[in-house]
Amino acid sequence: MLAYLGPEGTFSHQAALEHSKGKEELVPFVTITELIKAVSDGAVEKGIVPIENSIDGGINATLDTLAFDAKVHITGEYILHIGQNLLVKHGAKKEDIKVISSISPAIGQCCRILNSDFKDVEISYTNATAASAKLAANSDGSVACIASAAAAEIYGLDILVPNCNDEKNNSTRFIIIEKEKSRAVTEHDKTSFAFTLKNEPGSLYDALKLLADSKINMTKIESRPIKTQLGTYVFFIDIDGNIDNATIYFALDKLRRSTDFFKFLGSYPAAEAEENK
Amino acid sequence: MLAYLGPEGTFSHQAALEHSKGKEELVPFVTITELIKAVSDGAVEKGIVPIENSIDGGINATLDTLAFDAKVHITGEYILHIGQNLLVKHGAKKEDIKVISSISPAIGQCCRILNSDFKDVEISYTNATAASAKLAANSDGSVACIASAAAAEIYGLDILVPNCNDEKNNSTRFIIIEKEKSRAVTEHDKTSFAFTLKNEPGSLYDALKLLADSKINMTKIESRPIKTQLGTYVFFIDIDGNIDNATIYFALDKLRRSTDFFKFLGSYPAAEAEENK
Repeated sequence: MLAYLGPEGTFSHQAALEHSKGKEELVPFVTITELIKAVSDGAVEKGIVPIENSIDGGINATLDTLAFDAKVHITGEYILHIGQNLLVKHGAKKEDIKVISSISPAIGQCCRILNSDFKDVEISYTNATAASAKLAANSDGSVACIASAAAAEIYGLDILVPNCNDEKNNSTRFIIIEKEKSRAVTEHDKTSFAFTLKNEPGSLYDALKLLADSKINMTKIESRPIKTQLGTYVFFIDIDGNIDNATIYFALDKLRRSTDFFKFLGSYPAAEAEENK
Repeated sequence: MLAYLGPEGTFSHQAALEHSKGKEELVPFVTITELIKAVSDGAVEKGIVPIENSIDGGINATLDTLAFDAKVHITGEYILHIGQNLLVKHGAKKEDIKVISSISPAIGQCCRILNSDFKDVEISYTNATAASAKLAANSDGSVACIASAAAAEIYGLDILVPNCNDEKNNSTRFIIIEKEKSRAVTEHDKTSFAFTLKNEPGSLYDALKLLADSKINMTKIESRPIKTQLGTYVFFIDIDGNIDNATIYFALDKLRRSTDFFKFLGSYPAAEAEENK
């Protein structure tokens, strides 16, 4: 069983289909937080959730839930190319459009066309591209939506503008989460962890120095608010390598002891880099 | 003239009112990007935009526009306490609510009550709390909204649940932007800048080392995608002190020469820390 952010026709659904290659039963969830908690509680064995989009950035709900509200491990990642499309009710034309509906990240990925060709059209938000596709399908043609080509097929919509995202190279990185950590080690693993620091001058630099001194390559750093006070952050870091490697193990152990809060999120095989695909 | 993210009744409106103390004419804008570009183009002298919320994190539209799409300087900051409220049409009760409408960050700030008391209620998104307040006012009582107490007054709504945000200490940091940089120097200034790095092992650590070696205190680091390729980022950094200080000037100059892209965003007086308010 693989949990994904439903309903059918979302990019998460597409990622789940491609990742599982039809070998796993797919279970839709309504929110990312509920999905991650279900894996944490053991209600579902495995889940796939988006963590980062190449245009709109980190997925806050995923990062925040991973850090503070669940005990799960990242056991893999999957990169999906995102082709956004402007969809309309069958037969509708550009001049019929009064409202364009989608989720906030998809709107963020298509700013250019929205701010030029559809400058005077109202933008309306839902919490799933499939919900927006339904709105378009049930409208008189005045509601368009931004969604996947799969959504056009499922909801019987016309693709008015294909590939309407600002950057052609639009990808979302998904992570596979499980209750237990992965024990497998490959040649191209990465390791993810999160931590908070004492609010002292130089504390982040000192933490990164621990990694640099061990010649560990940091591939990503992202900060999210701790939520109790403005200006306090939890840092999410990805490094090359597996925790199974002694250098990495000891560096992270040293780092852990210098932090206020430390959470190991998993070592797992890195997805193929986009340029090699 | 001070540009703000309208319409009236938004927290941005409240921040603009408090910051200007009634001494400036306030001009509403529909999107953050348009507002920042209007200041960049000289169409408006000054603007106030949210850059970070203590619960929901960085405001992507502000960060992305500052880095790549405008030439403005930060000349000040203002911290506003955010009290979210669940508002309903006058006389409506909890059991009447079928839909709760708000902007994505406000929904993000009130996850706890939404996931417990309103677990089965549909969440609907708009692009301004004032738009959601209008929906609630024009409904039969089945639409509630999350918005400011000021919005309740403007749109004649009842406050069903006051202060419904997850954390009581909910604040948004606004920045004041102008075309020209500020020349004033105070005892408690901070400096903001953004840069991108070559995608090489250790490049971020080397950049931060330049600051640490000069005993410069970094108070914030945030990353946003460059948008052309997954895994490439622009970093936003805040440090203590003014660019007018020689140590800071030379350290940033050195940093600038080691980056792919560097943008000085301004030196300005730091807002009073929350705990001292």
